[in-house]
Amino acid sequence: MKLLTRHSRLMCVGIGTVIFGTGVLHRQRSVHVQAKTIAIPRKNVDSRKYMARPVTAIEKLQGTPNDMKSRMEIFIMEIQKEICDALEDLEVDIKFKVDRWERKTGGGGITCILEDGEVFERAGVNISVVHGTLPVKTTQQMRARGRPLDASKPLPFFAAGVSSVIHPRNPMIPTLHFNYRYFEVEEDGKSVWWFGGGTDLTPYYLDEEDVKHFHGTLKKACDKHDPSYYGNFKKWCDDYFVVKHRGERRGVGGIFFDDVDEPDQDSVFGFIKDCAKSVLPCYLPIIYKHKDEDYGFQEREWQLLRRGRYVEFNLVYDRGTKFGLLTPNARIESILMSLPKTARWQYMHEPEPGSPEAELMEVLKNPKDWV
Amino acid sequence: MKLLTRHSRLMCVGIGTVIFGTGVLHRQRSVHVQAKTIAIPRKNVDSRKYMARPVTAIEKLQGTPNDMKSRMEIFIMEIQKEICDALEDLEVDIKFKVDRWERKTGGGGITCILEDGEVFERAGVNISVVHGTLPVKTTQQMRARGRPLDASKPLPFFAAGVSSVIHPRNPMIPTLHFNYRYFEVEEDGKSVWWFGGGTDLTPYYLDEEDVKHFHGTLKKACDKHDPSYYGNFKKWCDDYFVVKHRGERRGVGGIFFDDVDEPDQDSVFGFIKDCAKSVLPCYLPIIYKHKDEDYGFQEREWQLLRRGRYVEFNLVYDRGTKFGLLTPNARIESILMSLPKTARWQYMHEPEPGSPEAELMEVLKNPKDWV
Repeated sequence: MKLLTRHSRLMCVGIGTVIFGTGVLHRQRSVHVQAKTIAIPRKNVDSRKYMARPVTAIEKLQGTPNDMKSRMEIFIMEIQKEICDALEDLEVDIKFKVDRWERKTGGGGITCILEDGEVFERAGVNISVVHGTLPVKTTQQMRARGRPLDASKPLPFFAAGVSSVIHPRNPMIPTLHFNYRYFEVEEDGKSVWWFGGGTDLTPYYLDEEDVKHFHGTLKKACDKHDPSYYGNFKKWCDDYFVVKHRGERRGVGGIFFDDVDEPDQDSVFGFIKDCAKSVLPCYLPIIYKHKDEDYGFQEREWQLLRRGRYVEFNLVYDRGTKFGLLTPNARIESILMSLPKTARWQYMHEPEPGSPEAELMEVLKNPKDWV
Repeated sequence: MKLLTRHSRLMCVGIGTVIFGTGVLHRQRSVHVQAKTIAIPRKNVDSRKYMARPVTAIEKLQGTPNDMKSRMEIFIMEIQKEICDALEDLEVDIKFKVDRWERKTGGGGITCILEDGEVFERAGVNISVVHGTLPVKTTQQMRARGRPLDASKPLPFFAAGVSSVIHPRNPMIPTLHFNYRYFEVEEDGKSVWWFGGGTDLTPYYLDEEDVKHFHGTLKKACDKHDPSYYGNFKKWCDDYFVVKHRGERRGVGGIFFDDVDEPDQDSVFGFIKDCAKSVLPCYLPIIYKHKDEDYGFQEREWQLLRRGRYVEFNLVYDRGTKFGLLTPNARIESILMSLPKTARWQYMHEPEPGSPEAELMEVLKNPKDWV
């Protein structure tokens, strides 16, 4: 893990969202297949098990079962299906819209989005699998930041990732964001690879039990792989999701990391898989606990104001979003899927001292250790 | 007017919003004094004629009546009062909140804001009068872009401006934005000065008569001063207010310019004054025409989606906003006063072909000549 390269790499990973799209399919679900969370047999890639047909041709995925590109693509398809199924189970009669799109210059993605549900106001789960050549300018930035890549010519790259933002309707349920990604650059026939990702929670009201459960579940996933991971990645997350001009964090954090390429590819992939598989155990108990809780106008107003801050962070600071928006022909709707359905601003709003709103602000201004 | 320097200068003008604040005053209006739009006698600066006491000490303003710094400050105070009065006249029992703040390192401002009115959902009229030293980095950028400033040391500067964004509640009334500003940098005892500004309109539904009236009124103000102004500044406006990642303009434009320093200070000040005084003639007839028009859920939803785009422009592209947010200790609430009260996002929203919403999109994608 080379911390110095994190910015350049995030920019490259941004390419994962820089994509062209085609029509929206309304999903047929006459056969409900439970998503598997264990690796499926490589010789049997069954697209009915996913939200849509894979981006990469099934024959290619089946023909390269040990290539990390295939393994990651199959894994993020599984995760997408698992998350979408779990969220749909909470809704009465609304399903994810499935939007499979292709990128003109290589690869594509599958955007799944559910809007105006009873539990979820807006929930998006996006995967993208893109490849092409890394522009010389990007490669130069990577070189300048320490990674020994040849910046004299465009280099072939591959990026695959899953990213999701879930905005529930009830202000007592936090918003959740996660993203796990794999990146490969080819140089003189040799591939340089790394993983990145994170899961973080944005509550509107502080429930310490929730936050401890959330961080505790993440810590367990991290500790299986390296005792230093949770502490380092928790801090990285606190440092990253900062609305700088407000002097506050977007939420109560979680984990965030990039550039993980040690000790070896299989181990890091195992870590990524455990992180992504911990999303539902982290989040579902919190949703079920609060989904039928009462709330009123004041709680909704506060949630919308905090969603305004979410918009400020994503549009002003989030590197993937910024990079995506500035890239010509990016697939904007998949990038901005992270924004809430509704956001609000109010001049000089200050929560009353001692109120539950003020209690939340306290931990957003001064991040705590939760486990 | 030197077009090459426009970026650096905008950044400097951004300092106009980089400010510290103090408490909110609720305005006493037992005596309603009509704002004058002609210059008031210099020896009689009467703070009761404005929204608050001037930023600069009254004695100083009275003692330097011919200095452009004093003239501009007095003028923007008059404009602020005139606009606030005209908007309050449209409301039943709601007044502007007046928030006079001071900037630790020199100067301050007066933020007037009206929220949750019957006609106006959110309307802000802000003036700032700031001075201090221009950081070497900023001066270097100015030098690099053509302006012959000595970048070897910090230079004293002064900036004064009025800026306003008015978001009405009824979707049939467009949003209006305007900003007029004066900038001065001192170098070896000599001052380099320029003016900038603009007025632009963001409708939710296209009413060609409105847009023609709006542009026609601006053209009249411009034509009094230079026959090339309207055409050049209309184009500059169309080129500036672009939501690039969407390939659409924020609205139907207006005028936008910077770096105007010819033919002489008095002439340019006269031009700026005519522009700022044309704001109400441009906008009031449009408000009165539509304020009691019926609208329903669909029109409100469309307005909120378009306000989402307004947020995207302001947070991602607007140079003053971006520069302000990235400056330590900026007065964030005055900068983000430009955001709407409520904004909304919806995945892949496309207006129906032939609908009034599609008709608006057509002119946002392909700006027209209106006069």
